[in-house]
Amino acid sequence: MTQQKIDLNFKPAAKLTTDDLNPLAINAKYAVRGKIAARAEELKEILKKDPSSVPFPEVINCNIGNPQQLDQKPLTFYRSVLSLLQSPSLLKNENISELFPADVIQRATDLISNIGSIGAYSNSQGVKYIRERVADFISKRDGEPSSPNDVFLTSGASTAVNYLLTALCVGNDTGLLIPIPQYPLYTATLALNNSNPIPYYLNEENNWSTDPIQITQAIEENLKKGIKINGLVVINPGNPTGAILEESDIRDLITIAAKYGFVLIADEVYQENIFNGKFISFKKVLRVLQRENPDGKYDNVQLASLHSTSKGVSGECGQRGGYMELVGFDPAVEAVILKLASISLCSSVSGQSLVELMCNPPTQGESSYELDHTERLSIHNGLNERAISLWKSFQNMKGVSCIKPQGAMYLFPKITIPEKAIAKAIELGEQPDEYYCSQLLENTGICAVPGSGFGQKKGTYHVRTTFLAPGTSWVKRWEDFHNKFIEDFA
Amino acid sequence: MTQQKIDLNFKPAAKLTTDDLNPLAINAKYAVRGKIAARAEELKEILKKDPSSVPFPEVINCNIGNPQQLDQKPLTFYRSVLSLLQSPSLLKNENISELFPADVIQRATDLISNIGSIGAYSNSQGVKYIRERVADFISKRDGEPSSPNDVFLTSGASTAVNYLLTALCVGNDTGLLIPIPQYPLYTATLALNNSNPIPYYLNEENNWSTDPIQITQAIEENLKKGIKINGLVVINPGNPTGAILEESDIRDLITIAAKYGFVLIADEVYQENIFNGKFISFKKVLRVLQRENPDGKYDNVQLASLHSTSKGVSGECGQRGGYMELVGFDPAVEAVILKLASISLCSSVSGQSLVELMCNPPTQGESSYELDHTERLSIHNGLNERAISLWKSFQNMKGVSCIKPQGAMYLFPKITIPEKAIAKAIELGEQPDEYYCSQLLENTGICAVPGSGFGQKKGTYHVRTTFLAPGTSWVKRWEDFHNKFIEDFA
Repeated sequence: MTQQKIDLNFKPAAKLTTDDLNPLAINAKYAVRGKIAARAEELKEILKKDPSSVPFPEVINCNIGNPQQLDQKPLTFYRSVLSLLQSPSLLKNENISELFPADVIQRATDLISNIGSIGAYSNSQGVKYIRERVADFISKRDGEPSSPNDVFLTSGASTAVNYLLTALCVGNDTGLLIPIPQYPLYTATLALNNSNPIPYYLNEENNWSTDPIQITQAIEENLKKGIKINGLVVINPGNPTGAILEESDIRDLITIAAKYGFVLIADEVYQENIFNGKFISFKKVLRVLQRENPDGKYDNVQLASLHSTSKGVSGECGQRGGYMELVGFDPAVEAVILKLASISLCSSVSGQSLVELMCNPPTQGESSYELDHTERLSIHNGLNERAISLWKSFQNMKGVSCIKPQGAMYLFPKITIPEKAIAKAIELGEQPDEYYCSQLLENTGICAVPGSGFGQKKGTYHVRTTFLAPGTSWVKRWEDFHNKFIEDFA
Repeated sequence: MTQQKIDLNFKPAAKLTTDDLNPLAINAKYAVRGKIAARAEELKEILKKDPSSVPFPEVINCNIGNPQQLDQKPLTFYRSVLSLLQSPSLLKNENISELFPADVIQRATDLISNIGSIGAYSNSQGVKYIRERVADFISKRDGEPSSPNDVFLTSGASTAVNYLLTALCVGNDTGLLIPIPQYPLYTATLALNNSNPIPYYLNEENNWSTDPIQITQAIEENLKKGIKINGLVVINPGNPTGAILEESDIRDLITIAAKYGFVLIADEVYQENIFNGKFISFKKVLRVLQRENPDGKYDNVQLASLHSTSKGVSGECGQRGGYMELVGFDPAVEAVILKLASISLCSSVSGQSLVELMCNPPTQGESSYELDHTERLSIHNGLNERAISLWKSFQNMKGVSCIKPQGAMYLFPKITIPEKAIAKAIELGEQPDEYYCSQLLENTGICAVPGSGFGQKKGTYHVRTTFLAPGTSWVKRWEDFHNKFIEDFA
């Protein structure tokens, strides 16, 4: 069959520009990997080529909770099992018992017999066996039953947020309640889905707690404006705030969700990073409220709880493991979320396996227990010490206030920026805290994220910093920079 | 500070239902993991409980290109290196050289020294070193230079499609040209992004080739209707068709992209699965056209080429590795795509490492070469034999026609469904090929995907089947079923 030929005498068209693209994609903002982070990468290259051209010995990445990029070592148990899942033939090596402890071999054998090859696509919701093990973990954590059918294994928590928001955002007359300050994944995903972030402010004066009256006001105002509210996002322990919610706060938030019938999204990825206070899951509090109210007032609550292998003492960000548990959802709604998951086929099966390991670490009596326990304790205590030490430094800086570290991987100090520095920032077309962070980076090599990337009350300025970087010399550089900055702009 | 209390005397709201959700998410369809695949999973459970209750010994998953779910073994070289990346301490074991060949140890050492820990988030575009290695591979494959700055490491090819389409879809007066039949990832992602699939039909009579005149007509018609066209998708080798495009077809498609100025998305994930014919990349043909036309007629062409570790002889679907190369894009457009990637942080770093291994397998003289070469050949030949054997069976089935296997992992036979069977399907509210596939599944345990899930010319019916499943007894079951089906509905 001969085909007709096309005309080769054509006038070529211009390339697409950003004017031709989806404005939702153009307008979405994601500060954690924004301009300052990009400049930090440039500075690293400059440092390599000519160390004398910058006034600091190294770039310190405090902009992202990425422990293993700094000096955190992975947990040996996790990595040993994952190593065997990649190379199952090692299990048949006659010297295998000299290479790995018995419980590592057993765990790898169990996982392989239930998963098959980690090179095969799994069910889009995740390997059933792993979901069962996650449900066991949740049941033990909360003392409340959990079903593997409601557990979805995801690529970190980001994918879970993506599925939930894609389902819940119905155009620009819908919205989700978002804490301010918030992790910008939420506003970015809302922007991509053409829905409104409805801000509710966290109470900095009261340890960054939630204020139910203010949240109710925000809801009522938006309902009056005709905005349909499909969800309420809570991050606990808080990102960027580092705060932990009290049980009473959680009860209030669940009550609000029960009253208004929207989905409560509990981002609980920092549940292992607790330095001062106690983590209580939303699921547990919900079950308590349901028992306390046999009239069924809390029976309609829909809760999505997110967890991740990227945080905690695991810190396995690059492995992309995570899960979400959907509690109380309409099965037809769960089916839509499963369809969204199925379009990207499945999350990394090696990452899924890591979720199993995170949920079921070695227990006392098992051969890896002692080492694993020691490693966990050392990571946890190291983070705690660094948090306290950084916090103490902020106490020494003029015009800086910061709550005592409670949880997560961040401090979010409030910085009083001098009027003259604010004027300078405006002159440069920058936010004042962006100017502060960019000066901090250029002068000390410390890369932190301006509070404006997370949202903050008008007229206040903050900086988010992790406390993951080792050593104390960089903290001293920050102190010196800060005091000079204040002086220069006095 | 005491907070005001909220009112606990509230009337609880109803749960959200699908009526409250994003209609774009509700309406998106994804047949590969649809109703029939779900029923196959149910049948597996039924088989476990009571094998005598179904008329077949096993469920055969021909619905998805998932080689390691069936009996394909992973390549030893890949897995050995990945195993060491998970457990770098093994590299320090004194017996390491008894466990792994020298080139495995060397490769793992090189990767670790360039990546650091695979547990750390990488750059959102992917580890720079791995992008350099991918660019080397592309340069060698095509004999044309490639830059690591234009390479994005992704979670399989699905994420690449997601980023590209999110950027290119600007609401319901825009669209992308999509081959029919197509892999439903494209229509599903277009649906989620509220843009139009503009179908162009592949020529079944001419080995499922592309027809530039028909494509041009589709473009002109849609432009007249006021639809802005931002992209043209080509899948080569074809999914579901299994066909390979000729160089002349590729030249025509690039010419169309040059004339109209939209992005050409070349889904080339099956580039290693070639049984009959030759794979030529769009990038190579573009560079040839650019040299042949010094007037610059092809200089504006924007090409996104996708590849994946899930297909080829790798078949590492569960590891979620892939890349896309952006050729000729406006840097500001590339920046938008990078921002979209940054919102999900990064793809699995273990998956990224696998991309490096796929792009740079052991070469002659290296210690793993012989084994690796043998394994690759055996997988490739095995697939070829199964493809031919299944194709021959289709020749024996009445009213079935199928092109000779050329590439990819699929056959897409056309099935003449008897009028009475069509009437039965309509009675059941099903598509005729859906009814055929569901009967095939219930009677033989073979799970294939109806052509209606991929799109097909009106009044024609197809089935997509992989040829990955081992053995021949299932093929015999299909033959017997088919002939009985035709007879029953004669």
